[in-house]
Amino acid sequence: MSFRTHLEAVVNQVDGALACSVMGFDGISVDTFQKDEATELDVSGTWVEYANLLTQLKNAAESLKTGTVTEVSVNSEKVLTVMRLLTPEYFLVLALRADGNFGKGRYVLRVTAPQVKAEL
Amino acid sequence: MSFRTHLEAVVNQVDGALACSVMGFDGISVDTFQKDEATELDVSGTWVEYANLLTQLKNAAESLKTGTVTEVSVNSEKVLTVMRLLTPEYFLVLALRADGNFGKGRYVLRVTAPQVKAEL
Repeated sequence: MSFRTHLEAVVNQVDGALACSVMGFDGISVDTFQKDEATELDVSGTWVEYANLLTQLKNAAESLKTGTVTEVSVNSEKVLTVMRLLTPEYFLVLALRADGNFGKGRYVLRVTAPQVKAEL
Repeated sequence: MSFRTHLEAVVNQVDGALACSVMGFDGISVDTFQKDEATELDVSGTWVEYANLLTQLKNAAESLKTGTVTEVSVNSEKVLTVMRLLTPEYFLVLALRADGNFGKGRYVLRVTAPQVKAEL
């Protein structure tokens, strides 16, 4: 399976999902699946900034003995974002509408992460 | 009601909750309620770093038109952390064990936030 197939499956399984990407911590997207209705969302711009913050969070959490950071979410008035760490270089990120199914999104990312990781 | 009463109520309502604080974005805690079993957790140290990251996230999200950031969570192998913005200066933060009730924690923070905000 290609990355795109996994990403499309994530978006199709979660109510309100807008887009899903495999991103590098350098801010470069490996692959993205985006719903047509999500074109207004500046996916790549937002996620580049999140990639940078996630790197800092990882470092912060490591120095604080709470174990490796596995998941980060950033929820705003319009968009919910769930990020799941794959490797020290890559993460999976899902954007949902604010009324989307956040719990299902977290679940689907968790089960999809090992499959995507196996192909990296 | 004092801050402490609200914070204690949050911790007591959520399975697996360890500690709850009202924090300033300057990293200074206004008030904290911590369960006895949570003494191992370096609450203040962790949250000072999160406060700093949250400030950057807020700025990133503002410039990206996804609306004001209302909630951020950082989940590691041992501890789940949910932060909810109160004002441009303060936020509410809840730490749970990794097997704690994350959804209930988000819900209780959301309903408690306006009450705490009213007293700031």
